[in-house]
Amino acid sequence: MAAPPNPLRRNEASRRAILDASLQLCAELGYRRLTIEAIAARAGVSKKTIYRWWPSKGAVVLEAVDDVATTVTEHPNTGDLAADLHTQLTAVIGLLTPAETSAAVGLIAEALHDEELARDLRERIIRPRIDEFKERLRQAQRDGQLPADADLDVALDLIYGPLYHRLVFHLGLPGPDELRTLLAHALRAFGPPPR
Amino acid sequence: MAAPPNPLRRNEASRRAILDASLQLCAELGYRRLTIEAIAARAGVSKKTIYRWWPSKGAVVLEAVDDVATTVTEHPNTGDLAADLHTQLTAVIGLLTPAETSAAVGLIAEALHDEELARDLRERIIRPRIDEFKERLRQAQRDGQLPADADLDVALDLIYGPLYHRLVFHLGLPGPDELRTLLAHALRAFGPPPR
Repeated sequence: MAAPPNPLRRNEASRRAILDASLQLCAELGYRRLTIEAIAARAGVSKKTIYRWWPSKGAVVLEAVDDVATTVTEHPNTGDLAADLHTQLTAVIGLLTPAETSAAVGLIAEALHDEELARDLRERIIRPRIDEFKERLRQAQRDGQLPADADLDVALDLIYGPLYHRLVFHLGLPGPDELRTLLAHALRAFGPPPR
Repeated sequence: MAAPPNPLRRNEASRRAILDASLQLCAELGYRRLTIEAIAARAGVSKKTIYRWWPSKGAVVLEAVDDVATTVTEHPNTGDLAADLHTQLTAVIGLLTPAETSAAVGLIAEALHDEELARDLRERIIRPRIDEFKERLRQAQRDGQLPADADLDVALDLIYGPLYHRLVFHLGLPGPDELRTLLAHALRAFGPPPR
């Protein structure tokens, strides 16, 4: 017997199809050439359906990136802070690479021109992940891997800063060995861990 | 007696007027609403004159930012590395503020979508300034203010990274005290200076 139609489930299937289509098309065309028309066609929904849920292309891509980032950028906790940060930053670099067709980079560029999107990017995507980062660092402080008085806001800037400096000036995101060197230096900025 | 017309000087006056107009209009309208028409009107030249010298709006703004950055972002050398970096980074922050109407930020956003502009941004604006930064750090090494074995590429990323991390995620560029704290930490990443 077929299950009765479930409007909530149908909405979730459409939502998933729309977000997946937006990421696929970003990867194929780049953010700038992405259109709501193309997303609708790929997802098999009407433009009206998309506009019912999202006010703009940027809002669709923001939600798609948020979904992907949730699974990809979790902070592991193996007890080795430097190794865990290496794992997590490698995942972040994956989201930013290749820059030409990265939905996340398209969003970053668009938000530099769009105050509302900028606020959503900061509040919906970045702030919760800053909280997760700080939670991992507090665990490292409890584990004696980071001094108890380390300034976690400074740590945030020193650890993630290099990625975005390289991104905006097209200097090439760090490979695994470079990333290890950067992280070792950033962690040294807080002095030796307590004994 | 009037000086004879000097085509080179006339060109330089037009060039100056075009670059100044592009920066003024960026500050008034933001990069995205800037047009070659508006630059031509403000500078009192024809669109044809602009297109004779520059292929695109991005190219005009790039040259204008390059000119400004040359005078603004020189590295002072008072013998105090942390203080001198504070001065220089404060000037860089000035170029990036307010983000909505900064020509430099407009250029950064545009270059994330435009490979040719990205290459020009890196090669014409950023690479020469990275060389100047490293020259200042080598002086600090000779002065005994930075260890002789400090990795200058890592220093570049740790010192400038925080600005761009905050820029792309709209977290607010650091004020003077925050900048001092960031720089102190970044320099500690290289260990104590040799005695």
